[in-house]
Amino acid sequence: MARYLVQPPVEDIRLADVMRALSEDVRLRLVSVLADGEFHSCKPEEFEVGVHKSTLSHHFKVLREAGVTTTHLDGRNHSIRLRREDLNARFPGLLDAVLHELASRQAVTG
Amino acid sequence: MARYLVQPPVEDIRLADVMRALSEDVRLRLVSVLADGEFHSCKPEEFEVGVHKSTLSHHFKVLREAGVTTTHLDGRNHSIRLRREDLNARFPGLLDAVLHELASRQAVTG
Repeated sequence: MARYLVQPPVEDIRLADVMRALSEDVRLRLVSVLADGEFHSCKPEEFEVGVHKSTLSHHFKVLREAGVTTTHLDGRNHSIRLRREDLNARFPGLLDAVLHELASRQAVTG
Repeated sequence: MARYLVQPPVEDIRLADVMRALSEDVRLRLVSVLADGEFHSCKPEEFEVGVHKSTLSHHFKVLREAGVTTTHLDGRNHSIRLRREDLNARFPGLLDAVLHELASRQAVTG
């Protein structure tokens, strides 16, 4: 049965937690993949960040618990997407500023 | 002789470092005091965050080394201000989003 992993409701998303979730380069790279707002499979090959699967799971958990992402579970398949609307409602302009910087990095590094 | 403590040049300010500097509630409260963009004395009574002077110095150092603040030294007197222009140039919209959230908190808590 499909379900969602536990995440904070939008009104409980804390600025300090979001900042901490986004204070690590691997997690910022995950967010840049998720920038399109769509669900992505949680498989390592989807993100290409060069970390072990268990480390990747840890990073996904940090993002989810901070309120940055939603994780959907369908059988054994996890997928993840950014909570764009929730973050924009809670901290207007914050996610856009982060995604703008991440997009300009990709433009530089190819 | 007046001087400034070492800080990263604007082009070297890293998003992950800024996010980490702003991922702690005491430092967010320091930033809310500094939101006016003016220099503030680094004395504890200026900030009223309820931490020991040495802890406060640590937080000031984290903010400065991340590129969030400038520390000015005149004899034994330290003063600090936000690098608003530099942060706005480097990550447009980011600081405004953070200050907006901090201002709305103050409106709630009085």
